[in-house]
Amino acid sequence: MVTIYFAAGASRWPTYEAPLRRALTEAGLDATLSPDCPDPALVDYIVFAPGGEIEDFTPFTRCKAVLNLWAGVERIVGNPTLTQPLCRMVDPALTAGMVEWVVGHTLRHHLGMDRHIVNPDRVWDPACPPLASERPVTVLGLGALGQQCAQALQALGFPVTGWSRSEKHIPGLQTHHGRDGLQAALAKAQIAVLLLPKTVETENILNAETLAWLPKGAVILNPGRGALIDDAALLAALTSGGIGHATLDVFRVEPLPQDHPFWAHPQVTVTPHVAAETRPLSASRVVVENIRRGEAGEPFLHLVNRVRGY
Amino acid sequence: MVTIYFAAGASRWPTYEAPLRRALTEAGLDATLSPDCPDPALVDYIVFAPGGEIEDFTPFTRCKAVLNLWAGVERIVGNPTLTQPLCRMVDPALTAGMVEWVVGHTLRHHLGMDRHIVNPDRVWDPACPPLASERPVTVLGLGALGQQCAQALQALGFPVTGWSRSEKHIPGLQTHHGRDGLQAALAKAQIAVLLLPKTVETENILNAETLAWLPKGAVILNPGRGALIDDAALLAALTSGGIGHATLDVFRVEPLPQDHPFWAHPQVTVTPHVAAETRPLSASRVVVENIRRGEAGEPFLHLVNRVRGY
Repeated sequence: MVTIYFAAGASRWPTYEAPLRRALTEAGLDATLSPDCPDPALVDYIVFAPGGEIEDFTPFTRCKAVLNLWAGVERIVGNPTLTQPLCRMVDPALTAGMVEWVVGHTLRHHLGMDRHIVNPDRVWDPACPPLASERPVTVLGLGALGQQCAQALQALGFPVTGWSRSEKHIPGLQTHHGRDGLQAALAKAQIAVLLLPKTVETENILNAETLAWLPKGAVILNPGRGALIDDAALLAALTSGGIGHATLDVFRVEPLPQDHPFWAHPQVTVTPHVAAETRPLSASRVVVENIRRGEAGEPFLHLVNRVRGY
Repeated sequence: MVTIYFAAGASRWPTYEAPLRRALTEAGLDATLSPDCPDPALVDYIVFAPGGEIEDFTPFTRCKAVLNLWAGVERIVGNPTLTQPLCRMVDPALTAGMVEWVVGHTLRHHLGMDRHIVNPDRVWDPACPPLASERPVTVLGLGALGQQCAQALQALGFPVTGWSRSEKHIPGLQTHHGRDGLQAALAKAQIAVLLLPKTVETENILNAETLAWLPKGAVILNPGRGALIDDAALLAALTSGGIGHATLDVFRVEPLPQDHPFWAHPQVTVTPHVAAETRPLSASRVVVENIRRGEAGEPFLHLVNRVRGY
C-alpha cells in the first residue's frame, strides 16, 4: 500500500482526483490518495504545486519523491528542508500546448495579422510578408519545450537559432551558448522566444543591454517565466521603437495587475498564462509513472538537478 | 532561338524581367523575351496572367504553351480560341506562403488569439483552449496546396479531414469526396479551409444549405477563391451564430469594395489577397523549366485538364 499526499492545493483536488485514481489503477498500484495530510511519517509520495500547503518537508521522513505538477520549480527548489528527490512535470500535453502557442504567435507576428484583425479604416494593402524562410527566429532555452518549439518552427521553414546557458548540440539546429553566444543569438532574431527556466542566471536575461542586441523592431514572445525580462527595460525599448512588439504569457505577478503598464501599451499583447497549462489527464499519468518507478526501484523521470536549479 | 511573349501585363514586367532572364540563362536557353507582342506567328511561348492583354489566341499558330503566372486559371480556361497547352503555376514559394497563412490563421482561431489582441477591459481569463488534437479541421480541395496545408496541420496535431470533388487517396489523411462526402466532411469541421479551384461545380459550394452542415460556431478560412462562398448566405450564418467567424483572403471583387458588409461584420476578418502571392524569383524558375521541357520534347509540368477546368 502506497500512501500519496495530494499537497497541490485544495482547489486542484476536484480536477486531479479522478485522473490520478484512474492512472493508479491503470498502473496496478494499490494506493491511498488524499488531499488531507496523513501522518507525515507515513507519506510515500507528495504531489505538489507552487502555492501548495507544505513549507517544511522535514516531517516527511519516509517520502521517496516530491512530484511537482508544474514544469517550473523555482518556488520550491531552494527550500532547505526539501531533501527528498524532486521531479518536474514534463507533460506531453503541456509541451503540445506550448508548441501551439509559440508557433501560433510566431506566425501571427510573421504574417502581420494584427493589422487585419483590427482594421477600422478598411485598408486593403496587399503588401506580402516575406516567407518564413526569410524570418530568423531565436529560441532561448533548449530543454524539452525549447527543442520541440524549434523543431516545429523549422518544419514551417523558419531559420531557427537556439541558445542555452551551457553548450548543447542538437541535430539540425544552429546553437549558441553562454554570455558571448547570447549576443550572437539575439543579433539575428527577428522573433525571439523565451523558454528558459527561472534561475539566478536567467533572471532579467532580457534587460536594457541585451534588448539592444536585438535587431530594430524585433518581436519578443515570452511563454517562459515573467522574471526573465526586466519589465521597465522592455517598456522603454518598446516605446523607443527598438523592440517592435512583445507578446507575454507570464508575469512577475499573476494575474497581471490591472494598473500594470503592459495592459495599456499598444505594442504589448497579454495572454493569461495559457501557453503551458498542465492537463490533468496526461499530468496524472506522468506523476503515477514516477510512483511506479519509485516502487519498482527504477530511476525517476525528470529529476531536478538541485545545483543547476531545474 | 526561342521567342517568348510576356503577356502578363505591363505592370508586372519590371518585376519579372530580371528573374525570367536569369532563369533562362541558368537553363542555358537562347531566347528573346519581350512585353511587346512580336509577330504572333513567331511566338513559341506565352507567359500569361489573368487580365493580360490577349483575348484571341488564334494568331499564335506556333505557340507551344501558354504559361500562367497564377495558380487559378478560371479566367482563361474557357477561352475557345485557346487551343494551345495551358499550364498553371505551382510555385513552391506560393505553396509555402499559403501553408503559413492557413496554419497561422488556424492557430489564431484555435487559440482564440483575438480576445487577447483586443482586450480593452484587461480581462485575465486563464481558460485554456483544447489541444490541437481535439480540434478537427477539414480541408476542401486536395491539390498541391490543400495537401501541403493538411500535412502541416497534421504535424501540429490537428485531426485533419480532406475533401475533393473526385475520389483521392492520400496516405495518412482521412478523405471524403463528392456531394455525399461533403456533408460528412463539413459535419465534423470546427475549422474549414477552402482550397478548391473555381469551376462551375465549386462556385457557391458554401451556401445556405452546406453552411448549415457545419457544427455551430465553426470557423471558415477562405484563401482559395471568392466565388466558392455565397456571400449573403455566409453573412446570414454569421449573424445567426451558425458560423462563428470567417477569415477571408479572396473575394468576388478585389480590392473588396469599401461598402461591402464583410468589412463591417465583427465576425469577419479580411486579409487582402496575401495568402498565395506568386513570388517572381521562384515563379520564373517554374516558367522556364516548362520552356526547357517544351524545347526538349518532355511533358509539361502542371498542364491544365481542359475538361476538368484546372
